[in-house]
Amino acid sequence: MITRYTRPEMGLIWDDDNKFSRMLEVEMAVADVQAEMKLIPREAAKAIRQKGKFSRRRIHELEKTLKHDVIAFVSNVAENVGPLGKYIHFGLTSSDVLDTALSLQMRDAGEVLLKGVSRLEKALRSLVREHRQTLCLGRTHGMYAEPTTFGFKMSGFLAEIQRNTQRLNRTLKELEICKLSGPVGTYSTLASEVEAKVAAKLKLTVETVATQVVPRDRHADLMLAISLLGGALERLSVELRHLQRSEVAEVTESFTAGQRGSSAMPHKKNPISSENITGLSRLLRGYAFASLENIPLWHERDISHSSVERVAFPDAFILVDYAVHRMSDLLEGLKVDKKRMLQNIQRSQGQVFTSVVLNHLVVQGLTRDEAYMNLQRVSHSMGEGDQLQDLVLKDKYLKKYLTKNKAEEIFSGAYHRRMIAKSVDGALKKLGGKS
Amino acid sequence: MITRYTRPEMGLIWDDDNKFSRMLEVEMAVADVQAEMKLIPREAAKAIRQKGKFSRRRIHELEKTLKHDVIAFVSNVAENVGPLGKYIHFGLTSSDVLDTALSLQMRDAGEVLLKGVSRLEKALRSLVREHRQTLCLGRTHGMYAEPTTFGFKMSGFLAEIQRNTQRLNRTLKELEICKLSGPVGTYSTLASEVEAKVAAKLKLTVETVATQVVPRDRHADLMLAISLLGGALERLSVELRHLQRSEVAEVTESFTAGQRGSSAMPHKKNPISSENITGLSRLLRGYAFASLENIPLWHERDISHSSVERVAFPDAFILVDYAVHRMSDLLEGLKVDKKRMLQNIQRSQGQVFTSVVLNHLVVQGLTRDEAYMNLQRVSHSMGEGDQLQDLVLKDKYLKKYLTKNKAEEIFSGAYHRRMIAKSVDGALKKLGGKS
Amino acid sequence: MITRYTRPEMGLIWDDDNKFSRMLEVEMAVADVQAEMKLIPREAAKAIRQKGKFSRRRIHELEKTLKHDVIAFVSNVAENVGPLGKYIHFGLTSSDVLDTALSLQMRDAGEVLLKGVSRLEKALRSLVREHRQTLCLGRTHGMYAEPTTFGFKMSGFLAEIQRNTQRLNRTLKELEICKLSGPVGTYSTLASEVEAKVAAKLKLTVETVATQVVPRDRHADLMLAISLLGGALERLSVELRHLQRSEVAEVTESFTAGQRGSSAMPHKKNPISSENITGLSRLLRGYAFASLENIPLWHERDISHSSVERVAFPDAFILVDYAVHRMSDLLEGLKVDKKRMLQNIQRSQGQVFTSVVLNHLVVQGLTRDEAYMNLQRVSHSMGEGDQLQDLVLKDKYLKKYLTKNKAEEIFSGAYHRRMIAKSVDGALKKLGGKS
Amino acid sequence: MITRYTRPEMGLIWDDDNKFSRMLEVEMAVADVQAEMKLIPREAAKAIRQKGKFSRRRIHELEKTLKHDVIAFVSNVAENVGPLGKYIHFGLTSSDVLDTALSLQMRDAGEVLLKGVSRLEKALRSLVREHRQTLCLGRTHGMYAEPTTFGFKMSGFLAEIQRNTQRLNRTLKELEICKLSGPVGTYSTLASEVEAKVAAKLKLTVETVATQVVPRDRHADLMLAISLLGGALERLSVELRHLQRSEVAEVTESFTAGQRGSSAMPHKKNPISSENITGLSRLLRGYAFASLENIPLWHERDISHSSVERVAFPDAFILVDYAVHRMSDLLEGLKVDKKRMLQNIQRSQGQVFTSVVLNHLVVQGLTRDEAYMNLQRVSHSMGEGDQLQDLVLKDKYLKKYLTKNKAEEIFSGAYHRRMIAKSVDGALKKLGGKS
Repeated sequence: MITRYTRPEMGLIWDDDNKFSRMLEVEMAVADVQAEMKLIPREAAKAIRQKGKFSRRRIHELEKTLKHDVIAFVSNVAENVGPLGKYIHFGLTSSDVLDTALSLQMRDAGEVLLKGVSRLEKALRSLVREHRQTLCLGRTHGMYAEPTTFGFKMSGFLAEIQRNTQRLNRTLKELEICKLSGPVGTYSTLASEVEAKVAAKLKLTVETVATQVVPRDRHADLMLAISLLGGALERLSVELRHLQRSEVAEVTESFTAGQRGSSAMPHKKNPISSENITGLSRLLRGYAFASLENIPLWHERDISHSSVERVAFPDAFILVDYAVHRMSDLLEGLKVDKKRMLQNIQRSQGQVFTSVVLNHLVVQGLTRDEAYMNLQRVSHSMGEGDQLQDLVLKDKYLKKYLTKNKAEEIFSGAYHRRMIAKSVDGALKKLGGKS
Repeated sequence: MITRYTRPEMGLIWDDDNKFSRMLEVEMAVADVQAEMKLIPREAAKAIRQKGKFSRRRIHELEKTLKHDVIAFVSNVAENVGPLGKYIHFGLTSSDVLDTALSLQMRDAGEVLLKGVSRLEKALRSLVREHRQTLCLGRTHGMYAEPTTFGFKMSGFLAEIQRNTQRLNRTLKELEICKLSGPVGTYSTLASEVEAKVAAKLKLTVETVATQVVPRDRHADLMLAISLLGGALERLSVELRHLQRSEVAEVTESFTAGQRGSSAMPHKKNPISSENITGLSRLLRGYAFASLENIPLWHERDISHSSVERVAFPDAFILVDYAVHRMSDLLEGLKVDKKRMLQNIQRSQGQVFTSVVLNHLVVQGLTRDEAYMNLQRVSHSMGEGDQLQDLVLKDKYLKKYLTKNKAEEIFSGAYHRRMIAKSVDGALKKLGGKS
Repeated sequence: MITRYTRPEMGLIWDDDNKFSRMLEVEMAVADVQAEMKLIPREAAKAIRQKGKFSRRRIHELEKTLKHDVIAFVSNVAENVGPLGKYIHFGLTSSDVLDTALSLQMRDAGEVLLKGVSRLEKALRSLVREHRQTLCLGRTHGMYAEPTTFGFKMSGFLAEIQRNTQRLNRTLKELEICKLSGPVGTYSTLASEVEAKVAAKLKLTVETVATQVVPRDRHADLMLAISLLGGALERLSVELRHLQRSEVAEVTESFTAGQRGSSAMPHKKNPISSENITGLSRLLRGYAFASLENIPLWHERDISHSSVERVAFPDAFILVDYAVHRMSDLLEGLKVDKKRMLQNIQRSQGQVFTSVVLNHLVVQGLTRDEAYMNLQRVSHSMGEGDQLQDLVLKDKYLKKYLTKNKAEEIFSGAYHRRMIAKSVDGALKKLGGKS
Repeated sequence: MITRYTRPEMGLIWDDDNKFSRMLEVEMAVADVQAEMKLIPREAAKAIRQKGKFSRRRIHELEKTLKHDVIAFVSNVAENVGPLGKYIHFGLTSSDVLDTALSLQMRDAGEVLLKGVSRLEKALRSLVREHRQTLCLGRTHGMYAEPTTFGFKMSGFLAEIQRNTQRLNRTLKELEICKLSGPVGTYSTLASEVEAKVAAKLKLTVETVATQVVPRDRHADLMLAISLLGGALERLSVELRHLQRSEVAEVTESFTAGQRGSSAMPHKKNPISSENITGLSRLLRGYAFASLENIPLWHERDISHSSVERVAFPDAFILVDYAVHRMSDLLEGLKVDKKRMLQNIQRSQGQVFTSVVLNHLVVQGLTRDEAYMNLQRVSHSMGEGDQLQDLVLKDKYLKKYLTKNKAEEIFSGAYHRRMIAKSVDGALKKLGGKS
């Protein structure tokens, strides 16, 4: 046994048994429609529905001789149905069943995944609201930039997850495809009316133009959407890992009683969940890439996509689903250290306010260049314990452009707090939440 | 000089001069709005619009000292504007200008690309119509499957290109973003009203929640859409290369007077355009992948995405644009050998009709298994010059289930032709064309 | 259960139980050396070796509280050992054990893989020898180029596999690494002498400079070597798929009694093994890529590589091992149709000999350009049933430069056969075989 | 013009003119050998060497009609040579010239790249020596782990670069290939003796078995080696970016007079070089991947690799060369803040010494579990200003196992300094330097 990251709810969707069930569902729907259209005897459809059963073991046994998984499956079901079993798979080619059943699996998998993503959105939204005013450093290039709030930070991730929800919804929708158009997509052995009626029964859409298969750009698009979701999870993971660095220490993943961080170093508490998720995103890119290479199949299709998909589809869904829930756990248990966030801002000795000072100096009459050069000069000359506010107010060149009151407003963070409150409320409104 | 695959129309969009022009457009729009809102003097905006000019040479000179491209650009424009130049870039951070200008470049690049894709669609649609009834082999696994028509074949590619057009339109739209929210996205130095008004002027949409930059999932999504278009081009290229194989010889890329195919072998005519395009698709995947890795920037952003984008964005757009037009040239000049297509069908000695025979035998009373095994037996026993039709009609076991007339209908292709005609008309209707 | 492509011999190496066994092997070797060096009591090492056991179930139970797999493992072994169990893992950090045990797993996996590759080499070499003189078409751009032999063709793949064997050997060797240098690689808790002695016991090499872990470029290099082997398998698969195309039909994958090719089309025999392998190569590229992204771990390491490796290492080894054996099966059962190969050469109507004619014409006095243009003219003017030999001998312009005898020598293939025999013998000599 | 990251020394190697020069070098060497072997007139070889010239403009003009770059090139040279020009390219196919010339370009490019890598090694070695004893934090998971020295840190990167130097040397060597075996690799139009002699002249190795081209796994292997070097550069960049974070502030990229860090925030100094290099590594992975997909060319080759290589080879070499030198600049100008490094160690309040304490407690009689749990308890209970040393010495449970002297030795860092000094000397010895 190789331990894998799997939540059973998602794992079961990709289980062989479920795959065969979905294939049977398609075969039955086809038989029903064919009976309605009097293409096969009504009793045949009835018998198929009543006695159509399969056994994984028996299918594998048959496959040894037949060397064809779908024929083995059909044969097994047919032998269970009895004489009328010959009407199963009537007019169909294997890919008709495989690809339509895959659509059903994908739809189920998508639902499970989206449930997780919705949990993740909720966790993020809750952090946005709770930390709407929790002042903390914004950093660019890994360096102090300007203050922001932790809630505002999280609102950016929420927005990205929402974009990914849309991408998933769209690409999943575009894969809810019924394809029953035969060996080369021309409906040579089954009228397009059958496809249309089966599609309606299964709540799927009919493929525009198929080859033997549903064109693989649809599947690639979905796998790319999953890799984009992976990218979002990675960006959030990396953020949380940074905020957990010993030197930053603004947030902590929950650490339970009895837990150990390192076998050698008893003091350690590590951001292992966010690191784990960071890695999973790399795997998702790999599956996406392999799926992109599945597009240019030969002619009306070769079967090279099949070995890729047997691995990439289950594994990508299973891993991203795991990552989404692990991230949700993480966020729901996240400890946010507000005090430390303020201390970190203070450690910048006021430098994080230079952008606002710069603008003010320009308004007060300095050229942009003069203002910039002088602020840079003062800033870069600071020693331990210095406060930029003091230095500017004392600076021969700059002091006449900045009153004490204005300085206080800026360097106390009051100005920023006001602006950010407005921003985060604006964000929440756009993101469909109430402040 | 390194020769590159570039169409000037697309190349110019990514030229440094155009980039600076777009940046200037953004700076001017901001100044205008700020003047309207009385945040800067009205004459400042006027002066910026009238005297705001840049010189690439001068910018590069300034950059040597400043080591910052945007500041070099702003300084150069400011020195041209004179004293009021200090109001340029007022309240902005570099990424405000860079990312909003990038949106403008992307929009232009998208327009050029979509023009090409539309030409490609037209070329495909024209082939669909012309070859609606041009019978040819459908092949799965590279092996004879069933007849189709060349027009139907092309309709599948047309459908895929249309899906890609939608993907491009969507991802381009989602990148028409104006972002002027300052160093960490909180509007600390510029009111969100300015952003909204500038966005309206530039016909862009305001970013939901930004960091210092427009979040990179938007850009990755576009680059992935381009790689999907690359996949479609590759699938079509591979199809055309297969059809050009000496043994198949159903189509030919145009070969002009004086052209040479090989330096050693004078007889050669090669599918060089479709091969060229096949390769380009590989590069597009590489750029897409690098763009995916650009998503998890640190905190409110690091600048690691920048070196990627300076290469990947121009090169991906330039190459895909080239590929789209080269494919259009190819299709517009494609020679289709209808006679050869029929000969190739005949070379299957009737085997391509087994699926229809199979269904007929089941309807006539055989079980699926009996029908299959016997058709397989006869099929695999065929010698040179044999015709499956004759063998089946003579076969002890099968002959009672197939009349001469029915056999004639199937093996003459009459049945298939009828089904495909219906299919291709159906396809054309879905694809927005008239049959 | 999700059916996976796994050969048990390789699968077992990656089983959790085997992983823990390898970890125990490392812990025991360390205890032995520490006892020898009198760093721990001799009885401790003895007790560890005698009573050191683990149970996967118990480890997973412990892990629930400890949230650390290695500590859970060590605790389980320690409780089995009793009081002296405290000397297990003495002075070690988890990664010391994990990475050294991983080296052992990799070595085993490498051995199994190389055994498969050696089988593959043998199958190829046997084809080279058997088909040393089996004339067939060489094709460039998918078009007739010049004759070659099937044996010569296969010798190129053999050479590529041999290069990959070397790559595997090298990268596997470079991963036979013992790393016991503690939390940040500085031997703070364990003298480097212990590492050296343990390495000798386990037949491993000591890491040059470690962080907490063996640097991940070593692992990436191996995964890239696997992706290169995948590339070789794919090139061979694609060749075999092309040669199996209905129109080419020069080779066939074995098709056993009772096997079925398609559920709809009884006549089909498809190149399913070579298609399957083609797809697997795409997955291997994905794992390689993820491994490349594992290199830039933070500082003395973060743990983001771990989730990647839990999936990518087993899956890449298991899949490539499967692909190597499936390809060996394929080659060992490959049917080569020599007669068809000759027929296909004849279908070129002599055009495949233009390169040799070209050279001869130049030697006889024509300029290269004259010779080329005239041969191209005659070649491209050929109709059905024409033979280039006749047309050249009758051509007003060319006939004086080519005698009948010379033409016969060239167009009969006699000249080529001579050259290729020499080439294939040369190849076999270079490739270490006897002709 | 699109500004690209190019060092002229590397850029010129990939210039069209240099490519044609290398092709001419190959053609001349072939003519010389053919003259020696009396296959062509001696005066022909002489004329080719003396009058063989090309003009890029003329080649492009000819290419418009011929649609074949090599024939255009050969024609241009031939017209300059005069009547004897017909002996140029005698018995050759285009790929003979292209691939052998590419080997020469690759060799040159490799030399330039390795010169840069050697500069980088020197810069690293110099940091190792200078900071052999510069104590700083080792961090795992981004958290305080144990002390190390900055020199030891750098020695790990040096070791990785050295591994990459070997990979580059090996893969470059394996691409120093002469391939003159004609259209399908069988020496049909040129005796293998010519190839052998030309190879000797050009100091290249003969291909084992070629198709029309040098097999593309050789090129892929090199591109993968470049991506591994990219990975090493990225790991180092990420390390330096982390060490430059405001909260860490242990090193700084040089910041020159007049330089500006941000257009909005005058206080900023950013790690822009290491960020730039981080991004470039992503692009290198993309080119490597595209090169992997170039391996499975069809039959004796198709030409799909060509469009990839025209972009990927120059761009990958140019970008990695730029990155190597930019990193060297960075390291040569790197400012290391030793005082800050010590302060950061102190900020851990002694926690970084727990691993050594743990071992000591076990030796003193505690079980591993008791020692661990108690150290964890004390560690996690620390408040601001606490020192772990004091707490342990006062702890009811632990104090009897740790003397004051031993505590002092450990918590002063004296013990670590001793171990690390030994480690770094060991590293330097392995890495070929003198301490």
